[in-house]
Amino acid sequence: MRITAKIKKPSLILDPEKARRNIRRMAAKAEAGRVVFRPHFKTHQSVKIGEYFRDRSLSAITVSSVDMACYFADGGWDDITIAFPANLRQIEEMNALAEKIKLNLLVESMDTVQFLIRNLRFSVGIWIKIDVGYGRTGVRYSDSDLAADLVREMEGTKHLDFKGLLTHSGHTYHAESRDRIRSVYRDTVEKLEAVQQALIRKGLPKGLLSIGDTPACSVVDDFQDVDEIRPGNFVFYDVMQLMLGSCSAEDIAVAIACPVVAKHAERGELVVYGGAVHLSKEYVTTQDGTKVFGLVVPETEDGWGAPVEKAYVSSLTQEHGVIKAGKEQLKKIRIGDLVLVLPVHSCLAVDLLREYYVEETGSEKVTTLKSDPDRPGCD
Amino acid sequence: MRITAKIKKPSLILDPEKARRNIRRMAAKAEAGRVVFRPHFKTHQSVKIGEYFRDRSLSAITVSSVDMACYFADGGWDDITIAFPANLRQIEEMNALAEKIKLNLLVESMDTVQFLIRNLRFSVGIWIKIDVGYGRTGVRYSDSDLAADLVREMEGTKHLDFKGLLTHSGHTYHAESRDRIRSVYRDTVEKLEAVQQALIRKGLPKGLLSIGDTPACSVVDDFQDVDEIRPGNFVFYDVMQLMLGSCSAEDIAVAIACPVVAKHAERGELVVYGGAVHLSKEYVTTQDGTKVFGLVVPETEDGWGAPVEKAYVSSLTQEHGVIKAGKEQLKKIRIGDLVLVLPVHSCLAVDLLREYYVEETGSEKVTTLKSDPDRPGCD
Repeated sequence: MRITAKIKKPSLILDPEKARRNIRRMAAKAEAGRVVFRPHFKTHQSVKIGEYFRDRSLSAITVSSVDMACYFADGGWDDITIAFPANLRQIEEMNALAEKIKLNLLVESMDTVQFLIRNLRFSVGIWIKIDVGYGRTGVRYSDSDLAADLVREMEGTKHLDFKGLLTHSGHTYHAESRDRIRSVYRDTVEKLEAVQQALIRKGLPKGLLSIGDTPACSVVDDFQDVDEIRPGNFVFYDVMQLMLGSCSAEDIAVAIACPVVAKHAERGELVVYGGAVHLSKEYVTTQDGTKVFGLVVPETEDGWGAPVEKAYVSSLTQEHGVIKAGKEQLKKIRIGDLVLVLPVHSCLAVDLLREYYVEETGSEKVTTLKSDPDRPGCD
Repeated sequence: MRITAKIKKPSLILDPEKARRNIRRMAAKAEAGRVVFRPHFKTHQSVKIGEYFRDRSLSAITVSSVDMACYFADGGWDDITIAFPANLRQIEEMNALAEKIKLNLLVESMDTVQFLIRNLRFSVGIWIKIDVGYGRTGVRYSDSDLAADLVREMEGTKHLDFKGLLTHSGHTYHAESRDRIRSVYRDTVEKLEAVQQALIRKGLPKGLLSIGDTPACSVVDDFQDVDEIRPGNFVFYDVMQLMLGSCSAEDIAVAIACPVVAKHAERGELVVYGGAVHLSKEYVTTQDGTKVFGLVVPETEDGWGAPVEKAYVSSLTQEHGVIKAGKEQLKKIRIGDLVLVLPVHSCLAVDLLREYYVEETGSEKVTTLKSDPDRPGCD
């Protein structure tokens, strides 16, 4: 991979073919199941990478902040769901967006619905966020009375248009097997349907069903029970998804190139320039209790190969990464070389590194929301 | 604190008086001990915050990357130690710096020393990084032969000027008490002195001794056995330092303001806009095994008060933070309010948020290396 020759410091490298393949696969599954594919763009955070999705004639996307919505609206996307409980302090920005594009917001409390009724000046689609068991946020699935109250409150309002029930089953991230992910998915659908039925019984519109987590969207083949899927991480995948069984190692589309600055052969370690401010402190714990902050892959002519056995990032401080590797592996690596690392959580690594090297774009770096001087979000 | 009225999204707030007091205290201790105070600027990463140190007529600073050195050199600092094993891939940038300012680099291997002998075109001060037991990187303290070989290799070279032995006793971060921190410090000094004595026995210059960790620099009062201290985190401190006993809660000089987006009173939780991309995934574990990602403080007229009992950030995902709090506390907080959070690791939170609100600068935001368009590091 010639691109690495010019890399001097920790840098994000994107394999565009892998990302495009991940997109094609997910889009094909959505098409087969006749569900709306509304990918979450919080993982790549880049208008340029967003263009990879255009090939599938997509128009609807998901983001996780008002700023991200401003950025992608500016990048030509005109149907955006902000899949985060509405941040009332950004009402001006939400109104500016709603004037310009088809904007969808999430609500989960009467306070927020009433605030939006009082303050929205343009029409907005409203999803009720349902907590089906993850326990982070949302209307508890068992509290269909609250869901019904929210729908009723919106009825007849000028600008709030109830769309349906939306959930993020983040507890698939705690699943131990692909079967377990499938069973969380089935449970999610049942709980959403139960809320829907409760709305119908109360004479209210039942709304659509939208789900979002990458593990379920990757492992489940048939989405006939829902109306929309919003996976995000799948565009790049990462070590966490690999361990969950959502992807194979060949699907991981980003790696971080880190310069080697020290070798400690006697204890089987390398030190790289590449730390918590590049990879994030996210880790996975292996079955024997080892914390892994990244996996090492070998550089190849056109990208990188399968993870090197027993070679991984074992600890991170602000700028330092410590890599454990076997003796044979260590012999091949010299101070000043680059080591390629697959991130544990690609969303966080991308957010930190904020620009990509992509082989096909030559020397030009691809920017993200947080590094694009021409598109500063809502500011 | 009126500044919070205009905050709409997760934002870093600096209490400049606390930062200045932290600087004064550390500088006074260094002056009393007649050691060089060479503060590490990786924590604040800001030319403007760096000016707070000028009052102490400081001229020498520490940074953790070549880019940070370029940024602060551009900001008027002309004696900089890059306290990170020399990154050979940035030799051009190191030469450009060495032409302009007094630059000090770290070495810990013969390969790096020989590379620098071949490639440096201007004079550079060289510190040998010694590992006194932290185990991250450096020449092992017991391997004084290697240290001596490195010094000998530098002797008589045109551009490499041996300065001394430098260490970061990061294992103070695993100490359980202030006494234990002091004992790690004493052990550090003994080990550095042993290497120094070995150099003398071999007829080599013994060099100066430089130490750097905030816990030891905060807890130890008398630095008579070393020549230089390089603490960084102390300028802001954080929850991790509080738990270690390096500081009191009133010393913590930064907080992150996070908008409340949901309330789950039945389980004593708030959800805020403020996640892993704002606070980092760094956590501390309390004695009962609870993971804490930040502490909640109440807003006051001129800043914030002492941490609210039993109110803390209990989990983080990309943009969401979950806060546990007591019933009485929850009653006072409404959706749309701001919650102030003391970060677990201020260095990482600053690196992520990249700009500060400072009461005394009014509406102007203070930039850091990674958000200053006029000073892009070495690029």
